[in-house]
Amino acid sequence: MNAQNFRLCEKLVSPAYVKQAEEARKSHETKIRILLEQRKWPEEGWEDGVIELMLDELALMDSNNFPGNCGVGEREARVVSKLVQQRHYRLGHGIGRSGDIAAIQPKAAGSSVLMKLTNSMVLDLLKITGVPNVKACFLVPMATGMSLVLCMLTLRQSRPKARYVIWPRIDQKSCFKSILTAGYEPVVIENKQVGDELQTDVEAIEQKINELGAENILCVLTTTSCFAPRIPDRLEEVAKLCSKYSVGHIVNNAYGVQSTKCMHLIHQASRVGRLDAFVQSTDKNLLVPVGGAIIAGFDITFIETVSKTYPGRASASPSIDVFITLLSLGQHGYKRLLAERKQLYKNMQEQLRKCAEKHGERLLDISHNPISMAISLKCETPVSNVTELGSMLFTRYVSGTRVVNCTETKEIGGHKFIGFGSHANSYPCAYLTAAAAIGVTQTDIDLFIKRLDKVMGKWKAPNVRNKVDTVSDDMDKVELNGDVSDTAKELDEKS
Amino acid sequence: MNAQNFRLCEKLVSPAYVKQAEEARKSHETKIRILLEQRKWPEEGWEDGVIELMLDELALMDSNNFPGNCGVGEREARVVSKLVQQRHYRLGHGIGRSGDIAAIQPKAAGSSVLMKLTNSMVLDLLKITGVPNVKACFLVPMATGMSLVLCMLTLRQSRPKARYVIWPRIDQKSCFKSILTAGYEPVVIENKQVGDELQTDVEAIEQKINELGAENILCVLTTTSCFAPRIPDRLEEVAKLCSKYSVGHIVNNAYGVQSTKCMHLIHQASRVGRLDAFVQSTDKNLLVPVGGAIIAGFDITFIETVSKTYPGRASASPSIDVFITLLSLGQHGYKRLLAERKQLYKNMQEQLRKCAEKHGERLLDISHNPISMAISLKCETPVSNVTELGSMLFTRYVSGTRVVNCTETKEIGGHKFIGFGSHANSYPCAYLTAAAAIGVTQTDIDLFIKRLDKVMGKWKAPNVRNKVDTVSDDMDKVELNGDVSDTAKELDEKS
Amino acid sequence: MNAQNFRLCEKLVSPAYVKQAEEARKSHETKIRILLEQRKWPEEGWEDGVIELMLDELALMDSNNFPGNCGVGEREARVVSKLVQQRHYRLGHGIGRSGDIAAIQPKAAGSSVLMKLTNSMVLDLLKITGVPNVKACFLVPMATGMSLVLCMLTLRQSRPKARYVIWPRIDQKSCFKSILTAGYEPVVIENKQVGDELQTDVEAIEQKINELGAENILCVLTTTSCFAPRIPDRLEEVAKLCSKYSVGHIVNNAYGVQSTKCMHLIHQASRVGRLDAFVQSTDKNLLVPVGGAIIAGFDITFIETVSKTYPGRASASPSIDVFITLLSLGQHGYKRLLAERKQLYKNMQEQLRKCAEKHGERLLDISHNPISMAISLKCETPVSNVTELGSMLFTRYVSGTRVVNCTETKEIGGHKFIGFGSHANSYPCAYLTAAAAIGVTQTDIDLFIKRLDKVMGKWKAPNVRNKVDTVSDDMDKVELNGDVSDTAKELDEKS
Amino acid sequence: MNAQNFRLCEKLVSPAYVKQAEEARKSHETKIRILLEQRKWPEEGWEDGVIELMLDELALMDSNNFPGNCGVGEREARVVSKLVQQRHYRLGHGIGRSGDIAAIQPKAAGSSVLMKLTNSMVLDLLKITGVPNVKACFLVPMATGMSLVLCMLTLRQSRPKARYVIWPRIDQKSCFKSILTAGYEPVVIENKQVGDELQTDVEAIEQKINELGAENILCVLTTTSCFAPRIPDRLEEVAKLCSKYSVGHIVNNAYGVQSTKCMHLIHQASRVGRLDAFVQSTDKNLLVPVGGAIIAGFDITFIETVSKTYPGRASASPSIDVFITLLSLGQHGYKRLLAERKQLYKNMQEQLRKCAEKHGERLLDISHNPISMAISLKCETPVSNVTELGSMLFTRYVSGTRVVNCTETKEIGGHKFIGFGSHANSYPCAYLTAAAAIGVTQTDIDLFIKRLDKVMGKWKAPNVRNKVDTVSDDMDKVELNGDVSDTAKELDEKS
Repeated sequence: MNAQNFRLCEKLVSPAYVKQAEEARKSHETKIRILLEQRKWPEEGWEDGVIELMLDELALMDSNNFPGNCGVGEREARVVSKLVQQRHYRLGHGIGRSGDIAAIQPKAAGSSVLMKLTNSMVLDLLKITGVPNVKACFLVPMATGMSLVLCMLTLRQSRPKARYVIWPRIDQKSCFKSILTAGYEPVVIENKQVGDELQTDVEAIEQKINELGAENILCVLTTTSCFAPRIPDRLEEVAKLCSKYSVGHIVNNAYGVQSTKCMHLIHQASRVGRLDAFVQSTDKNLLVPVGGAIIAGFDITFIETVSKTYPGRASASPSIDVFITLLSLGQHGYKRLLAERKQLYKNMQEQLRKCAEKHGERLLDISHNPISMAISLKCETPVSNVTELGSMLFTRYVSGTRVVNCTETKEIGGHKFIGFGSHANSYPCAYLTAAAAIGVTQTDIDLFIKRLDKVMGKWKAPNVRNKVDTVSDDMDKVELNGDVSDTAKELDEKS
Repeated sequence: MNAQNFRLCEKLVSPAYVKQAEEARKSHETKIRILLEQRKWPEEGWEDGVIELMLDELALMDSNNFPGNCGVGEREARVVSKLVQQRHYRLGHGIGRSGDIAAIQPKAAGSSVLMKLTNSMVLDLLKITGVPNVKACFLVPMATGMSLVLCMLTLRQSRPKARYVIWPRIDQKSCFKSILTAGYEPVVIENKQVGDELQTDVEAIEQKINELGAENILCVLTTTSCFAPRIPDRLEEVAKLCSKYSVGHIVNNAYGVQSTKCMHLIHQASRVGRLDAFVQSTDKNLLVPVGGAIIAGFDITFIETVSKTYPGRASASPSIDVFITLLSLGQHGYKRLLAERKQLYKNMQEQLRKCAEKHGERLLDISHNPISMAISLKCETPVSNVTELGSMLFTRYVSGTRVVNCTETKEIGGHKFIGFGSHANSYPCAYLTAAAAIGVTQTDIDLFIKRLDKVMGKWKAPNVRNKVDTVSDDMDKVELNGDVSDTAKELDEKS
Repeated sequence: MNAQNFRLCEKLVSPAYVKQAEEARKSHETKIRILLEQRKWPEEGWEDGVIELMLDELALMDSNNFPGNCGVGEREARVVSKLVQQRHYRLGHGIGRSGDIAAIQPKAAGSSVLMKLTNSMVLDLLKITGVPNVKACFLVPMATGMSLVLCMLTLRQSRPKARYVIWPRIDQKSCFKSILTAGYEPVVIENKQVGDELQTDVEAIEQKINELGAENILCVLTTTSCFAPRIPDRLEEVAKLCSKYSVGHIVNNAYGVQSTKCMHLIHQASRVGRLDAFVQSTDKNLLVPVGGAIIAGFDITFIETVSKTYPGRASASPSIDVFITLLSLGQHGYKRLLAERKQLYKNMQEQLRKCAEKHGERLLDISHNPISMAISLKCETPVSNVTELGSMLFTRYVSGTRVVNCTETKEIGGHKFIGFGSHANSYPCAYLTAAAAIGVTQTDIDLFIKRLDKVMGKWKAPNVRNKVDTVSDDMDKVELNGDVSDTAKELDEKS
Repeated sequence: MNAQNFRLCEKLVSPAYVKQAEEARKSHETKIRILLEQRKWPEEGWEDGVIELMLDELALMDSNNFPGNCGVGEREARVVSKLVQQRHYRLGHGIGRSGDIAAIQPKAAGSSVLMKLTNSMVLDLLKITGVPNVKACFLVPMATGMSLVLCMLTLRQSRPKARYVIWPRIDQKSCFKSILTAGYEPVVIENKQVGDELQTDVEAIEQKINELGAENILCVLTTTSCFAPRIPDRLEEVAKLCSKYSVGHIVNNAYGVQSTKCMHLIHQASRVGRLDAFVQSTDKNLLVPVGGAIIAGFDITFIETVSKTYPGRASASPSIDVFITLLSLGQHGYKRLLAERKQLYKNMQEQLRKCAEKHGERLLDISHNPISMAISLKCETPVSNVTELGSMLFTRYVSGTRVVNCTETKEIGGHKFIGFGSHANSYPCAYLTAAAAIGVTQTDIDLFIKRLDKVMGKWKAPNVRNKVDTVSDDMDKVELNGDVSDTAKELDEKS
C-alpha cells in the first residue's frame, strides 16, 4: 500500500479511516526502514503480521516471483509443491553464491537482503549478550560440528604444516569428530578435578604445544557450554598461550550465548590473547529448529575467509527461522528469556539439592557451570542400576537428563575414552545431570523434580530394584498423565 | 481416527456415512502403511491433505510434542515463534546425532522416521532415473559444493597420503572451491575441443596420474551436468582409469538426475570401473528450495562412512521439502515432468536454431549435452558488447542465460583460468547458453525466444549499439509487461 | 517496500539487482493500483504471493493490527488463537455495521476495502457471465436459502399486505423452506410435462395471481438451475406477468452463474419484465467452501435496501474466499473453467447415453437443462430396488447422483408433496440424474461411467438383485481402488 | 499412526523410542476419544498440533477428500484455490442441510462431527459460565442481529397473529433493526433513571402488554450486556410477566457470556418465568473473528425448531474458529481469561475514577453494569466539542470509547430516537464510556488512561479548544509511538 493506493482507498472507505490506517502503516514502514537502514536488532518485537509482510515483500524481490520472468537456466528456484512454496514464504534461491556463502545473488535480491539483515542482527545478539567487541559473524546452515570443521579447514590455509588439534577433553562426540573430519589428529588434554569440578589443565596444554611444536598444531579447540561436572574452559589462559605460541584458537560455544558467563569468557579471551573464531548453535540459543550455527570472530578478514571457504549456495531455511525469531522477540523479548532462565537455574538447583538430600545424595558443588548441574548417585548396587534410573526417567517423559556411571569405555575414530560421558578417566562417583537452558519453564522443573523424587524412591527401595520397571506400571502412569490430561484424572480417581 | 473413534462418531452422525469415511480413511492408511512397510516411492502422488496428516503424525512422535513431557536438557527442540513452529510442522529436532547424520534420535522418533523414509524414497528416485544398481544414499542438508567436500574428507581417511585431486576443467566455482576447502591441490585437466563440443581429455588424466603417482592422488572429480559447449565427462573411461590405478572417483552430478544420459553414464561407469560417490542437488532435480544434496554410491559401507563423517545433527528442512515433494508428485508425476522436459529441450533447440539463423548466428552442434545449448555470437564489435547482450536480457526478465566472451581471465584460490566461463583456454567464439531444465515451461521458452529475437535485433543494429540500453526504454517495457499483465495491455494500446 | 526502502536495500545488495526487483514490484503494485482504481475483476489471475501480500496489507489497515492501538470497547477483533488468526489473515472485524452489511467500518478500513472490492468484482462476474445490465450486488455470508429469506423480508416492507409467495414447484427443500421462514404461505404451481421435460406452467401462475389478488402476493419465486428433468423456469414470461400485475419477482439462480443459458434467461427477463433480485451461491459457482451467496438486481435502491435489511455485522470469511479465488483465477481462468464445463457436459451426455442404451435404458431428452441430465430406470422390480442402485453408487464413491423413484411422498411444513424429488406428482418413470457442474473433470466422468456401467450390470442381473450388495464385495473394491491407489493394483494382481 | 504403523516404524527406528511415541500418541488419542465420547469441553487446552491433526482427520472424512471419489453432483465441495483450501483445512461442505442447519450431511461426515462437537462444547460453555440448566444451543454463522431475526421468525410460527415486539430501549442499531427485518413493529419502552443508572421500566412493559393485548405481541426482546449508563434488563421480572401473559421472551446477551452477572440473570429468569431463547455473539465472548452467534434455550424442541427454520446449508468457518478456540483454551484457559477480565474491570474503574477527578469530572455510579463504565463530561462549551474529544482519542489509537452528548436525534426505520446513543430521551450529562471486555490487557488500560489524561488536558484547556487537533501534532505522536516502537524513542530523544 503506497500513498497512491491509500488515496484510492479513500474512494472506497472514509478518508478519515484510511488516514488512520496509513498512519499506522507508516509506523510499520518506519520499523522496516530502520531495520534496513541501521540493520540493528529491534528492541521491541514485531507483530507476526508485520514479519510475514516483510517476508512476502522480500520474496517478491526474487526472480522466481517476478511477473513475466522467464527462466532458462538450470537453477531457477522453481518449487513444484505449493506446500513447500508456502513454508518457505516463496523464497527458493537459498543464500550465497558459488564462491561465498555470504555473497549476494543476482537472481535473489530479496533472499540476499534477508541473509544480510539476519547476519547483522545476529552480530547485535552477540554484542548484547556479552561480546561487545565482536567484529563479524555469519549464520551457516549447518550445526556446530560441521561449522567447526569449516573453521578448521579455513585455518589450514594459513597453517599448511599443521597436523594436530589440541583439545581439552569434553565428552561430546560431534565436537571430537569434527577434528577427525577436518583431517586432524586430536590431542586430548585430560581435565583436572578441583573439588567436584572438572577444569582445564592449562599447564598440560602448554607442555603439549612445546612437545609437538607450535607449527604442527592447527589450533586449540576449547569449549564453554558443557555438562556438569565439567566447567567452561579457562579461555583467557588458553588464549594467552595461543597468542604466545601463534597457534589458532577456536571456541565451541554451542549453547553459551544464553549465559553471560560463557560470553564473558569469550570477551575476555579476545582481549588478552588469541581467539580466531567462536561457534554457537542457533537452535540451542535462539529456540529455532536444529540446523544452523553462527560463526563469529574478532577479525573481519578471517571470518570472511571462513564464509568464502564454504563452497556454493546453502539453505536459507535456518536464516528465515532466525530472522523471524529475532524480529518476533526483539531484544527485550530475548533479554526477558535470559532473565527467566537465570532465575530458573537457581530454582532448579535449590529443588534439586533438596530432592537429592531427601534420598541420601547431594548436589555436586559445580558453581562455575552456569547451565548444567548434577547430583551424586552413590549406589552400592551394580552399575546396571545407574542406567536403569535413566530409563525410568525416560519412560516417564523426562527428557534431557543424563545418568553417568563413569565406568564406560568408548572408542571414537580410533581413540579410546575411559569413563566416557564423564569428561574424565576416573570421576569419583556416578551422577545425574540436568540443565536449566533457555526456554525451560517452572512447570518443566516442577514436573522433573516430582518425577525424579518418585523414581529415586522406587530405585533406592531394594525390593523394587529387583524387578524390571515397566511402562505399564499403573501407579506411575497415573502420576505421569495426572500432570497433563483429563484422562489421567479419570485414572487417578479409579486408583 | 482409529476404529474406536469411528464407532464413537457413529453416535454423532449416521453410521453409513461414517463407514464410508472409514473406508476412505483406510485407503489413506494403506498408503501410509505401504510406505512404512516397503519404503518405496509411491507410484501415484498423494493429496496434500494426506501428506500434511502424515507430517502431523510424525511430529507427534517427537518428544517436544509429547503431552506432559518435561525437558531439562540443553536441547529440547523448543521453538519460541509460532510462525517458525508451523513452517516446520512442529518438527524441531533436526536429523542425525552427534556421530552420524543418518542416525536415529531417541528424542525424535518421528523426525527419524521421516529421514529414513526420505532417504529410502530418494534411493528409488536414483534407481528409476537410470542407476538401478545404486546401493545407498542419503540426503544431506548442504548444497553440492559442501557435499563434495564431505566426500573428499571421507576419502582422505583411506588415502592419508594423497595431496591432489584431478579435475577435468569445468568453469563453475563451487566445484573447484570444494577441492580447496577439502584441503587438496586441484590438478586441472584441460578439455579437448571436438567439433563444437568440449570433451574430457582422458589421456591427459592418465598421464597426470602417472606423473604425480596414484598414491598421491585422492580422486578424480568428474562432472556430468554442465553448460554447453562442454559435455558430460567420459565417466566410463575415467572410472576404468580409477579402477586401474586405485584412485578415488567422485562425480558431481549436480543437475543430472533429470537426464537419462547423465544417469546412464553413472550407471555404466559403476559397472566397468570405480566410482565411489556421486552427488546431486535436490533443488535442481526435485524442484525444492536450495539447500540439499543427495550423496549416493555403490558401496554401502563407503556411503555410511560419509554419513558418519558428518559430525553432529543437521537441519531437517531439506528432508521435509523432499519428503513432501516426492509424495506429492509420486513416480508418475515426476516421470511426467521428465518427459515434458525432454520434449521441451527439443523444442527450445529448434526455436533457438531458427532465431540464431535469423540474426546471422548458428546453434552450436553440441548433441552430447542433454540439458544446455548454445548459439554463437560472432560480433565484430568489442568484447564489452557481448556482456551488454546479457544485461539486455537480464533487464527484460530473462534469467538463466549466460553470455560468454571466452576472453575473461579469473583467479580462484591462486589458480588462474584463461577464458573463464568457457571451460577452455581458447574457445573459438563468443556464445550464449540456455538450458531446458526440469520445470521449464513452453511459456518460458516462447517468452525467451521472443525477447531474445528483439534483443538480438537491437544489439546487432549499429545505431543501437552506441547508446546504452536502459530499462526505461518504453517499447520494450510494453513488450515485457504485455506478456503478463493488464497494465501492459493498457500501455500497449497507448503506444 | 517503498522507494526509500529499495534505496536502502541498495546498500545491502547490488543496485542493479534491487532495481530489477523494484521494477518487478512496480508491476505488482500496478495490479493493486488498477484493482483499487477500477475495481474490476482482473483479466489475468494473480500469483498467490501477491494475493497474500494484498491481504496482509489490508489486515494492517484494521485497528486490531495497529501498533500501539489500545482497545477499550466491547468488540476489538481480538483473536486469541494464533491458528484462527492466521487462517483469517489477521482480519477479525468481519464486514458491515449495525445498520448495513455493506457499510464500512471505522475500525476496519482494510476489511471494508476487501468487502467493497469483492462486491465490485462479483458485479463484473455477473456481467461477464451473461447479465451485462446488472446494476448492483453484494456478497452475503449466508447460503442461498437464507439469502432468499432476506430478499423476501425486504420486499415485505413495500408489500405489507402480502401473504403468499407463488412458487413453480422445484423439489428442493431449502428453497421451499425459505418461504415458510420468511413467514409466507407458499402457493405451489405444478410443472407441465412436455416430452421428457418439466416446464413452468405460466398460465397457472397468472390464474393464481388473479385468484389470490395481486396485492396479496409478495412475489413469484422462480428457479433457473435445477435437476433434470425439470428445466429452468420460463423467466421472461413470468417477469412479464410480474410486471403486468405489479408482483415481486425473485429468482433462485443457485448454481446458474456457470451456465450462459441461465444467465441469459435472467438478462432477458430483466429487459422485458420485472425481476427484483436474483440469488446465487458462491460455493457452487465459484468453487469456494459453502457459506456465501450473491444477491443481485437491476435496481440499485432495492439491492441497497436488501443490504440494509441485514441487521448487524457478518463474517468476512466468504468474502475472503471469493476475493482470493477471483484474483487467483482472473477472468481468463474462470472463462477457461466455463468452457471446460461446457465441453464436459456434452461428453458426459454422450457417455451416459451409451451406457444407458447398453443396459436397455435411455438418456432422457431434456435439452433445455444446461447442467443436469437423467437416464431412465425402467425396472420391473419393486421400488426399493431403485434406491438400492443409489446406495450401490454411494458405496462406490460416486457422489452427487440422485436416484428418483417418483413415488415418494413428503410433508414439509405442512405441505404434502407427491412424487417428491421429481418436481411432479406423477412423472412417468424412475430415473437417475447426474450433473456436469463447474469443476467436474474428465476423470470424474470416466470413473462415474465405469462404475455406473458395472453397477447397472449387477443391478439388472436378477440373481444379484436378490442378494444385498455389500461393500465387502471384493471384486468391486478392487475396481474401486484400482482407479486410485497402489494398494488396489496390488489387490488387482492378487485377484 | 495406528498400532500396525507403529510396529512398522520399529523397523526404522529403535522400538523403545517408538513405544514412547506410541504411548504419547495414545494420550492424544485418549483426548480425542473422550471428546467424541463425552462431547464435553476439555478442562485443559489442547496443543495446536493436536487440534490441527484432529481437523485434518475430520477433513478426510468428507467426500471431497476421499481418494477416488468421483463427483457428478452440482455441489461437490470443490475448492479451486489452494490458499482457500488450506485456510479451511480442506473442509468445504459447510454445515447443515436443506432442512436444518444442525442436520448431518451424507457427503460430509467430518464436517458434521465438527459441527456437533462444537455445539456440544458450546453448551458446556454456557453451563459453566452461569446457566447450568440450559438445554440446547447451536452455533449459527450469522452475527447476533440476524440470529435474533431467526428467533423471531421461529416464534412467529406459534404466534401467527402477533404484530409487535416490546423492546426496552437500548441504543444499538442492529438490535432494533432485527425487529423490523423480522417484520414486526417495535414498541419502545423508555428506561427509568435511578441514580446514574438507566434501568428497565417493568411496569411500563406490563402496561403495554395490557394495552396492546398479549396475543398481538410476539415477544419482549430484552438485553443484558450494554453500554453504561444503561444496565442489564431486569430479566427475572420481565420473564415473570412473559410467563403470566404467555408472551415470548428473547434475550440479546450479545457479550454477556463473559460476565457472571449477565449469565446469572438469564439463569434466574429461566427459573422464575419465561425465556424462549438467548443469543450471544461468538466474537465478543470467545475472541474469534466476527461472524457467529450462539442461539440457546431451555426447551430442546424450541431450539430445534429455530435450527430447522434456517433454510439450507451454512458456512462452517465460524464453527471451525470456535472449535479451535475452545480446544485451544480448554475450560481452564477460558476461566483464566474471565478472572483476568474481572480483575481488570476493577482496575480500569479505579484508574478512570482518578483520571476523571483530576480533570474535574467524575466516574458515574453504575455499579450494575459489569463490563461498561462511564465518566461525566460537563463541558460548558458547545456540543461539538464533546465529539471533538472522541476524535482526539481516535487519532491517538484509542478504539472502543464512545463519547455521547445526549442531544443527538436519529431516525431508524421510521422511529425517531431523541438522545440517541444514551438509551434515554434526556440523560442529564454528556459522558464517555469504556469497557473492560474479555481479552483487554493491563497495557490497554494503562495506555488508555495515559492518552485520555493527555487528551482531557488539551481538551479542557481553552486555548487548545480553538485550534483544530491534528494528527501531525508532533508531541502527541511522540507519545503515541513512544509506547510501541524504536522509532518513537528516537523521536522522543530528538524532541
